[in-house]
Amino acid sequence: MYKTHFTSEVTPELDGKTVFLAGWIHTIRDLGGKKFILLRDRSGLIQVVVSKDSAAYNSVSELTLESTVQVEGIVKSDKRAPSGVEVHALSIKPFSIAKSPLPLEVSGKVESDIETRLKERVLDLRRVEMTSVLNISSEVIRSFRNTLYSKRFIEVFTPKIIASATEGGAQLFPVIYFGREAFLAQSPQLYKELLAGSVERVFEIAPAWRAEESDTPYHLSEFISMDVEMAFADYHDVMELLEDLVTNMIDVVKTHCGKELAELKHELPNITKPFPKISYSEALEILRGKGFTIKFGDDIGTPEARILAEEVGTPFYFLVEWPSFTRPFYTKSIDSNPDLSESFDLMYKWIEIASGSTRNHNRKVLEENLRRKGLNPENFEFFLRWFDYGMPPHAGFGMGFARLMLFFTGLNNVKEAIPFPRDKKRLTP
Amino acid sequence: MYKTHFTSEVTPELDGKTVFLAGWIHTIRDLGGKKFILLRDRSGLIQVVVSKDSAAYNSVSELTLESTVQVEGIVKSDKRAPSGVEVHALSIKPFSIAKSPLPLEVSGKVESDIETRLKERVLDLRRVEMTSVLNISSEVIRSFRNTLYSKRFIEVFTPKIIASATEGGAQLFPVIYFGREAFLAQSPQLYKELLAGSVERVFEIAPAWRAEESDTPYHLSEFISMDVEMAFADYHDVMELLEDLVTNMIDVVKTHCGKELAELKHELPNITKPFPKISYSEALEILRGKGFTIKFGDDIGTPEARILAEEVGTPFYFLVEWPSFTRPFYTKSIDSNPDLSESFDLMYKWIEIASGSTRNHNRKVLEENLRRKGLNPENFEFFLRWFDYGMPPHAGFGMGFARLMLFFTGLNNVKEAIPFPRDKKRLTP
Repeated sequence: MYKTHFTSEVTPELDGKTVFLAGWIHTIRDLGGKKFILLRDRSGLIQVVVSKDSAAYNSVSELTLESTVQVEGIVKSDKRAPSGVEVHALSIKPFSIAKSPLPLEVSGKVESDIETRLKERVLDLRRVEMTSVLNISSEVIRSFRNTLYSKRFIEVFTPKIIASATEGGAQLFPVIYFGREAFLAQSPQLYKELLAGSVERVFEIAPAWRAEESDTPYHLSEFISMDVEMAFADYHDVMELLEDLVTNMIDVVKTHCGKELAELKHELPNITKPFPKISYSEALEILRGKGFTIKFGDDIGTPEARILAEEVGTPFYFLVEWPSFTRPFYTKSIDSNPDLSESFDLMYKWIEIASGSTRNHNRKVLEENLRRKGLNPENFEFFLRWFDYGMPPHAGFGMGFARLMLFFTGLNNVKEAIPFPRDKKRLTP
Repeated sequence: MYKTHFTSEVTPELDGKTVFLAGWIHTIRDLGGKKFILLRDRSGLIQVVVSKDSAAYNSVSELTLESTVQVEGIVKSDKRAPSGVEVHALSIKPFSIAKSPLPLEVSGKVESDIETRLKERVLDLRRVEMTSVLNISSEVIRSFRNTLYSKRFIEVFTPKIIASATEGGAQLFPVIYFGREAFLAQSPQLYKELLAGSVERVFEIAPAWRAEESDTPYHLSEFISMDVEMAFADYHDVMELLEDLVTNMIDVVKTHCGKELAELKHELPNITKPFPKISYSEALEILRGKGFTIKFGDDIGTPEARILAEEVGTPFYFLVEWPSFTRPFYTKSIDSNPDLSESFDLMYKWIEIASGSTRNHNRKVLEENLRRKGLNPENFEFFLRWFDYGMPPHAGFGMGFARLMLFFTGLNNVKEAIPFPRDKKRLTP
């Protein structure tokens, strides 16, 4: 047993008790007859006082920043200490002595550029800002799942090595699968639809891959996709579900991650449901009114989305009813106006963080849509054949976890939101 | 809105109320003047009665098994009905009419062979046995996470595309990554260790890949790995954690999945902590006493493990302290007897379901271990360099989700425990 307490569990009530702590040397200060160590663990920091007359004093001289140690000490309530309590060391046992100087400062306030930080990532992740990001991430994911459990969704795992391209084939990573060519899944789309056709309500949080050529603050070549698929539902139902998911996550993070938000100097706004909805057609009108030349079928890029975000004035809004031909083949068109689709993007400011739709559950229409996109329905037979056997009406969405985390953390680049990001040039660490 | 209630929510208290249900036609019986439909949804089955004089009667004639419908009807409390309640249909709206006959029976008790079931998987997953498996799976995973949250672990995501082989290099799937060769991760091992070196306690539930040539009931080429890594801990600590995780999962499944276990005709035994521990050396003695010729360093295969399981008499036991040279390079040896390691396998009967150890946190020793295995430390520099900067003592394990599910469901083959399994010959569905 390396520790009896986390540092956050050492409270004034333990005054006089002996505790064992274990963690990293965050800072050391030498004030003549005494040394003050800030010891860091999973839960935070505590001040350890080492007197010249204690047996621990000699072992302190070899300690460097980020060395790992076990501290045996006596708890002293002290109003002057940062947490109202400090630990007077009886003995300090080092586990590993860190080389000095460190390639990246952990305790300092020195801002390193993102390239250096990603290179020195293990040290970077020890910085209080990054541990805050990881703590918030874990809570966000946890809340997402809890909301879905409460609505009878089950968690599933879909295959990541697939035989054919989900939505066309660009940007796929090839895998050599027992001598055959296969691909890494761009999304669990077709499999989650099939599972909704079996067990009605499913979700999955898993990696997905796109061979992104461009290096932007919003793209990763390996990303975590939060996927939901729901039978007997349409795009309105899943937009409502998304609103519940997002607002519940905000509540949970506000409740449980106050310390982390403060470390990040980040505040979460109050969000009310429903989120504003702007139709694609309305968006074109707004943009044309602002002088943009944009025609039906054009994508809404970042400059355009910035204008729309300003117009809406809330962090989250839906862009709904996109032109049918701009959406994937499984998207359902609006019956009364087939040029438009029952689709949406959830926008956080100018960033698309989720995309969803009512799915088409008619085999004939799916085949037509594939042909219209120049794809061969025969290659999708593993998917299409089930539409002969009772596929329900269904709807769903995929949300990008790292993009969502930009909202929750105030970070500006998705590469910071993932411990070890992957992009065109980055395969290590 | 397609439904006002799930079928399980239709209780005798709703007597006389109008409800909207949506689901699949599980069975239809024609009793002269009335038709009886068992309607199936995510939550179970309910009897729908269609009288000859109702407007719904005509639409029923076109309905086939597994067609999807919306039923509007009036709830009638009726003690003769299977759930004490039935719904008298006012109207039935079909969404999709399933082709007949079905390639696999959903409602029947006909047992199909596993090859047929995996081929017709979307129908197979609708069978009550398989929905029970999926429901239990989701609860097992949920309990695993909840236990870890309560012990201050955070959920993390590690990269799945890696530049070099984790533990040697056999059985890797190559990926073409922007024109470069990379690999799919066999395990998150090295990354979870680094994260434990940053934030102390982490877990991940994610896919991992091994190019398994052999077709056994216990191997998948893509599998879900439940990974835990814990700083300031040794193998005894993580074995204790595993005991807590497993017994909590059993409690949760017993409490929440009674119906599912009954459908599977499966009972979970009472398990007490701690689980028995047999050292590798003791295991050799037992096996030699039973007439096996087995020498120090040999693996303990299925025939041997069957004998040990019988000897122990409990479903779960640990095989501990394996020869150091048989374990991966990151495994810590026992200081007082370096031929043996601080390692364990958690066995369920004769099946290894988890494997773990204290990890070595001394760079020099790690480099020696790599060389001893014929591996070049330079290729592991992305991992080793952090051991210069305060890696704590740490320990962890990886557990195979599908194997664990054999215990919880009574299934005999891991391919049944995953919706769409991948093996040497299977890339679809």
